[in-house]
Amino acid sequence: MSIKPKYAHESLTVTTELVLPNDTNALGNLFGGRLLQWMDTTSAIAAHRHCKRVVVTATVNNVSFKEPIRLGTMVTLEAKVSRAFSSSMEVFIDVFVEDPVTGHKKKSNEAIYTFVAIDQNGSPLPVPELIPETEEEKTRFEGALRRKQLALILAGKMKPSEATELRELFMGK
Amino acid sequence: MSIKPKYAHESLTVTTELVLPNDTNALGNLFGGRLLQWMDTTSAIAAHRHCKRVVVTATVNNVSFKEPIRLGTMVTLEAKVSRAFSSSMEVFIDVFVEDPVTGHKKKSNEAIYTFVAIDQNGSPLPVPELIPETEEEKTRFEGALRRKQLALILAGKMKPSEATELRELFMGK
Amino acid sequence: MSIKPKYAHESLTVTTELVLPNDTNALGNLFGGRLLQWMDTTSAIAAHRHCKRVVVTATVNNVSFKEPIRLGTMVTLEAKVSRAFSSSMEVFIDVFVEDPVTGHKKKSNEAIYTFVAIDQNGSPLPVPELIPETEEEKTRFEGALRRKQLALILAGKMKPSEATELRELFMGK
Amino acid sequence: MSIKPKYAHESLTVTTELVLPNDTNALGNLFGGRLLQWMDTTSAIAAHRHCKRVVVTATVNNVSFKEPIRLGTMVTLEAKVSRAFSSSMEVFIDVFVEDPVTGHKKKSNEAIYTFVAIDQNGSPLPVPELIPETEEEKTRFEGALRRKQLALILAGKMKPSEATELRELFMGK
Amino acid sequence: MSIKPKYAHESLTVTTELVLPNDTNALGNLFGGRLLQWMDTTSAIAAHRHCKRVVVTATVNNVSFKEPIRLGTMVTLEAKVSRAFSSSMEVFIDVFVEDPVTGHKKKSNEAIYTFVAIDQNGSPLPVPELIPETEEEKTRFEGALRRKQLALILAGKMKPSEATELRELFMGK
Amino acid sequence: MSIKPKYAHESLTVTTELVLPNDTNALGNLFGGRLLQWMDTTSAIAAHRHCKRVVVTATVNNVSFKEPIRLGTMVTLEAKVSRAFSSSMEVFIDVFVEDPVTGHKKKSNEAIYTFVAIDQNGSPLPVPELIPETEEEKTRFEGALRRKQLALILAGKMKPSEATELRELFMGK
Repeated sequence: MSIKPKYAHESLTVTTELVLPNDTNALGNLFGGRLLQWMDTTSAIAAHRHCKRVVVTATVNNVSFKEPIRLGTMVTLEAKVSRAFSSSMEVFIDVFVEDPVTGHKKKSNEAIYTFVAIDQNGSPLPVPELIPETEEEKTRFEGALRRKQLALILAGKMKPSEATELRELFMGK
Repeated sequence: MSIKPKYAHESLTVTTELVLPNDTNALGNLFGGRLLQWMDTTSAIAAHRHCKRVVVTATVNNVSFKEPIRLGTMVTLEAKVSRAFSSSMEVFIDVFVEDPVTGHKKKSNEAIYTFVAIDQNGSPLPVPELIPETEEEKTRFEGALRRKQLALILAGKMKPSEATELRELFMGK
Repeated sequence: MSIKPKYAHESLTVTTELVLPNDTNALGNLFGGRLLQWMDTTSAIAAHRHCKRVVVTATVNNVSFKEPIRLGTMVTLEAKVSRAFSSSMEVFIDVFVEDPVTGHKKKSNEAIYTFVAIDQNGSPLPVPELIPETEEEKTRFEGALRRKQLALILAGKMKPSEATELRELFMGK
Repeated sequence: MSIKPKYAHESLTVTTELVLPNDTNALGNLFGGRLLQWMDTTSAIAAHRHCKRVVVTATVNNVSFKEPIRLGTMVTLEAKVSRAFSSSMEVFIDVFVEDPVTGHKKKSNEAIYTFVAIDQNGSPLPVPELIPETEEEKTRFEGALRRKQLALILAGKMKPSEATELRELFMGK
Repeated sequence: MSIKPKYAHESLTVTTELVLPNDTNALGNLFGGRLLQWMDTTSAIAAHRHCKRVVVTATVNNVSFKEPIRLGTMVTLEAKVSRAFSSSMEVFIDVFVEDPVTGHKKKSNEAIYTFVAIDQNGSPLPVPELIPETEEEKTRFEGALRRKQLALILAGKMKPSEATELRELFMGK
Repeated sequence: MSIKPKYAHESLTVTTELVLPNDTNALGNLFGGRLLQWMDTTSAIAAHRHCKRVVVTATVNNVSFKEPIRLGTMVTLEAKVSRAFSSSMEVFIDVFVEDPVTGHKKKSNEAIYTFVAIDQNGSPLPVPELIPETEEEKTRFEGALRRKQLALILAGKMKPSEATELRELFMGK
């Protein structure tokens, strides 16, 4: 029996946090480890919403920290599945900080997590395909394959010559 | 005045943790967010030991979670600077779990963090060069340039044609 | 200078949490104190979004816990300002749990928090009026006055005979 | 078999906490959510001491925050059952801060929690009646009925005309 | 100007805690480190109540763990200054667990902490003398001198021949 | 069957921590309770590495806090079994702080923990003997017997006249 595909927006998960002293480093800014923890929880819920299965973190990549986030800042995390493979899902997390006076939201970080859906014995389970709709969803959907090939190459599980998507990037078509 | 280069082993930082209920997910395993937090602290100390400056997390990549780590497990994290650039440092973290009966250590995770050294205004500061000695240190040192080029390309800050190290990977020399 | 009124939906704040062992009581359910803490943060952000000022919790009321929330449950908190007075705001928080298989959201708790906007010396500051739009927003807006009168009576700061809104409830018009 | 009634003072539960950075908000004061958590634990123990059963939080009301509590302050919480109903108990919590020089205790907050005693299946269990002795215990005991009626009315489970205790408050006897 | 002596009971500090999953080790019992943390806070408040000064932990001794304390147990800590020296105070902490059915309190642990009163530069400040009243208070008061001598000998700061109190213990008078 | 003795260095356990706001007291220094918790975990792992059994904390002694440890400091804990008795182990923990500029490590605290190895019913299990090698290991090994006798005397379980090791300290040979 095939599994019904799902739209990207169905997995959207939003979390809002307030940076308390408990979350800061010695400089009074949000410390990286805490943000990684928030991103892990938010993106795990997004992956779960896509497949309705128990999910476990498989990889974390592309986490970038541009500017320090000050104590007292409101932080919003938005996670959405960007592509589903046989039993794994790639999730994009965008992190925004909110200007306390204007309320304007500014992107401060992003990250890409992957999760695997598992059964009670820890064996992988199939997950629904993902249907991207918006421009951003489509761009991330396409990039996901390139990132997967890259991970396989770096892990020595794929030859560069087989990574058709990536070869184009370096050599042109 | 130039800064005296340092050996990789001078930055080695070891942390040992015991997985308590406070660190677990609903399945009774170490949850990803907590491990990311431990890795962040351990690797930040390694980066600091290399440059003796305040450091802030810049990126996180290549975090992989292979097998669940059970409640009660002893976890050892080993972080070491793998390469220094002008004001940033790449740090490798290897995570090991210890067999409670034999004491045998088995690698369970790894990750690559980068840190930037900053002054009191948050401006980047120069850091010492890194001298790799062991085979592993040399391999990671060489890979660091490839990873940096890849990050620049993915961020749109370098053209694939300029990434000489990476091109070889896909095209041969 | 008058302050421009705001719509209720402009303050909507959503937070999604996963119940981890760290959040549970000895029965393996989400413990009340942790949920109160999550509600406090989420509703404080909603109040801040309405007035763009530093806000501090003034009162907590009407928190009800119907059914235990199990370890591993996804919990969504939605907070929205229900009425603004001169320098205080009433915020409604609705808490939902999500069925892990169907994804169906079911309301599990609610609470009413009030916050006061303050300046750097802790003195109260005026806040914008709130404009309710939906039926639910209007019902909560109207109830807010009744709740405020009741609080004043119970605190001995208003005579029951002056509480016109409440008297109607007991005596008819 | 009837259950032997108990005196209010038998449930008295005292907790002393020191406000650490971990407990503060961005202003350096105890944050509301942490105090709510401390009150929840302290009052749950008071309810347990009255009935010797597993208890779960049912409602939270009348929490008031008058003045900010500074980092480093010693906070004392005193909880005591104010009235027992068939399977629920109302608990009053008084919160005091201690002047660091004179040692003088000043009341800073109060709250009213209710708890339900449950068996292993979560079904409600009968609890002992409460006997108030001091003036304050008697005042709170009597107020408890009024508060219960009010809660039932607000929940739409009682008609205002049936709330004899409350009607008197608004209409005189 | 001399400082007015104080009675032991004036420093009594009581804390009640409930063992939550967050406080347990992999066996489901209260883990030692958490109990040490609770004892540190409770006894620091007792020392502060004696001298009304900022106090810092100087030493910890005689902590004994007899039986495991299970998840869900109510734990009561009682701390009281046992003797004051020029600028330091010895504090005894007794830890009790409460039978959930009978309410009977049983002693499970004890510990002896010492604290030093300091000014804003970290320099020691004089503290009031302590007047013991009960039998237990007197026994602990007398033992305190013996423990202080022993600590000085073990630290190489006193010759055994000068430790008159201790010599008696081994040689008779 | 006899158990094969082990060398002291086989149990060496190193942990590195960074003092974050979450770990500090109202003065902005590492608070004693948190350091006690770190020492408990680190020394428990050392004891486990010696005996490969589940271990529980039995006693804590000789914890000394010399100087305040500031927010942002890197703290290294080194724990090693100093002597094994029939089913218990004494563990020494040395705590070092690292100068952020020179990297020089300075000893700031020490402590002596004892642990008991237990089976699934909580009954004590035999542990391997310990073989000290370095001068420091030998000094600590010899002192352990004296400390054990002292603990037994103070607990009223040994007569001073039987404590041959300790008598010498006070009376000469």
